[in-house]
Amino acid sequence: MESPNPHYKEAVERGFGDAAFVADLGIVLADYGPGWCTATLVLAPRHMQQTGIVHAGVQTTLADHTAGCAAMSMTPAHELILTVEFKVNLLRPGTGESLWCRAQVLKPGRKFHVVESEVYAIAGDKKTLISKLTGTMAVLPRK
Amino acid sequence: MESPNPHYKEAVERGFGDAAFVADLGIVLADYGPGWCTATLVLAPRHMQQTGIVHAGVQTTLADHTAGCAAMSMTPAHELILTVEFKVNLLRPGTGESLWCRAQVLKPGRKFHVVESEVYAIAGDKKTLISKLTGTMAVLPRK
Amino acid sequence: MESPNPHYKEAVERGFGDAAFVADLGIVLADYGPGWCTATLVLAPRHMQQTGIVHAGVQTTLADHTAGCAAMSMTPAHELILTVEFKVNLLRPGTGESLWCRAQVLKPGRKFHVVESEVYAIAGDKKTLISKLTGTMAVLPRK
Amino acid sequence: MESPNPHYKEAVERGFGDAAFVADLGIVLADYGPGWCTATLVLAPRHMQQTGIVHAGVQTTLADHTAGCAAMSMTPAHELILTVEFKVNLLRPGTGESLWCRAQVLKPGRKFHVVESEVYAIAGDKKTLISKLTGTMAVLPRK
Repeated sequence: MESPNPHYKEAVERGFGDAAFVADLGIVLADYGPGWCTATLVLAPRHMQQTGIVHAGVQTTLADHTAGCAAMSMTPAHELILTVEFKVNLLRPGTGESLWCRAQVLKPGRKFHVVESEVYAIAGDKKTLISKLTGTMAVLPRK
Repeated sequence: MESPNPHYKEAVERGFGDAAFVADLGIVLADYGPGWCTATLVLAPRHMQQTGIVHAGVQTTLADHTAGCAAMSMTPAHELILTVEFKVNLLRPGTGESLWCRAQVLKPGRKFHVVESEVYAIAGDKKTLISKLTGTMAVLPRK
Repeated sequence: MESPNPHYKEAVERGFGDAAFVADLGIVLADYGPGWCTATLVLAPRHMQQTGIVHAGVQTTLADHTAGCAAMSMTPAHELILTVEFKVNLLRPGTGESLWCRAQVLKPGRKFHVVESEVYAIAGDKKTLISKLTGTMAVLPRK
Repeated sequence: MESPNPHYKEAVERGFGDAAFVADLGIVLADYGPGWCTATLVLAPRHMQQTGIVHAGVQTTLADHTAGCAAMSMTPAHELILTVEFKVNLLRPGTGESLWCRAQVLKPGRKFHVVESEVYAIAGDKKTLISKLTGTMAVLPRK
């Protein structure tokens, strides 16, 4: 994929920096390119549902925000991204030291992008797919 | 609806008390009965995406957890609830002083319940529907 | 709700008349108004998955098309509707003489509408909710 | 993936043969193995929404049924598959001579499988991804 924004890196970096909730949880931008983005989260007791199991809301925040940044990388400079809807399938209980997420634009568009995110739990040297998000991200003019 | 658990109140209360992430965000159980549950969240800067707009992850955490507690109210005492999947439609930007969520079991079942949650933003005396979740909650034996 | 198209009735009727697949299945427009639409389908052996159970594809076609017509009723005359995505929960096995569907716009918008459809199975004088669709319908310029 | 049913081929073939609606549309089983299945549909005017565009209901029927058969291949002999829910993203208008669908089990389970289907439109020697389904398939005892 090729980005329509020559300065898309700035837009993706800003997409992470601007979001207070993402910073509050401890989610960190890892890497990105045109049409994709990765991010990580070191797990702490406050992220849990019950002892040792990551809350679905934490997984969704990571998956949605990383998807938004992947979408941002395919968006012209004068426009921005807003999540319209997503679906999340929780595949396995999330346990381990950290989460790693990779988002990939499945279909870029002029009015909206369709993006998929996969969330993995990292425990030692084991990496397990724990959830998958599919979402629609609207492309809107910046004010 | 009628609960199959005569002590369902205890189960719903425990469902809120047990979840570290829900407490960390500030989500508070408001009210509940057989097949439904309500919860609230006083908004703070850390819940935001950009200034003044609640992050989709906050809305989802509130909607999913309240749905889980509504599901819990329709679940026998020897079983518990695990979210299988959900879809969230973000309908309007979330702004205001607090969020209020009402979850309602659409179809209770022996193996899983289907639950809907509506999230409203409260600004002064105005209450606006900002997102809707539909989810599938598995009914599993307690260990 | 109030329609932005004074001739929305014509647009809804055309929405049903134009679709070969909907006519082929036997789906018939029942009633409509601003923001809602109903349709019916008399069941035949060819609609089944196994003997006596309606195929999910039949339910989805009915739910999606009725949702599209409800969306059409809230769309300006120079624009049309295209389904972006939907989620369907199959709640109970569909059996009986016919299906009845009611679609309701949950949130109208300038760029897309969010619509919900409920599908009921009719058996004698019994009416049972068998599935629910939530969908996003894009509002696009007519060529 | 490895099938828990040594006679899974029989179960998958029967899954296609039993469904009247799938036969009525003209959907044909193409190939399959443990955890995956492919199927095709030669397009005719009756499958259309408007001239030349395949109805979302046709795409969903193909995607859901192929997903069910992929799920069937990962299911013990004494159990069967029932669709709980699915989400479909319509990515591009479906036009061409035929549709081709590949379903893949993302996560097999004892109580339900999560399956993804991709639907492609075939026009001459061009193959275009037009929709993607993610679904939850319950594993239930045969009566």
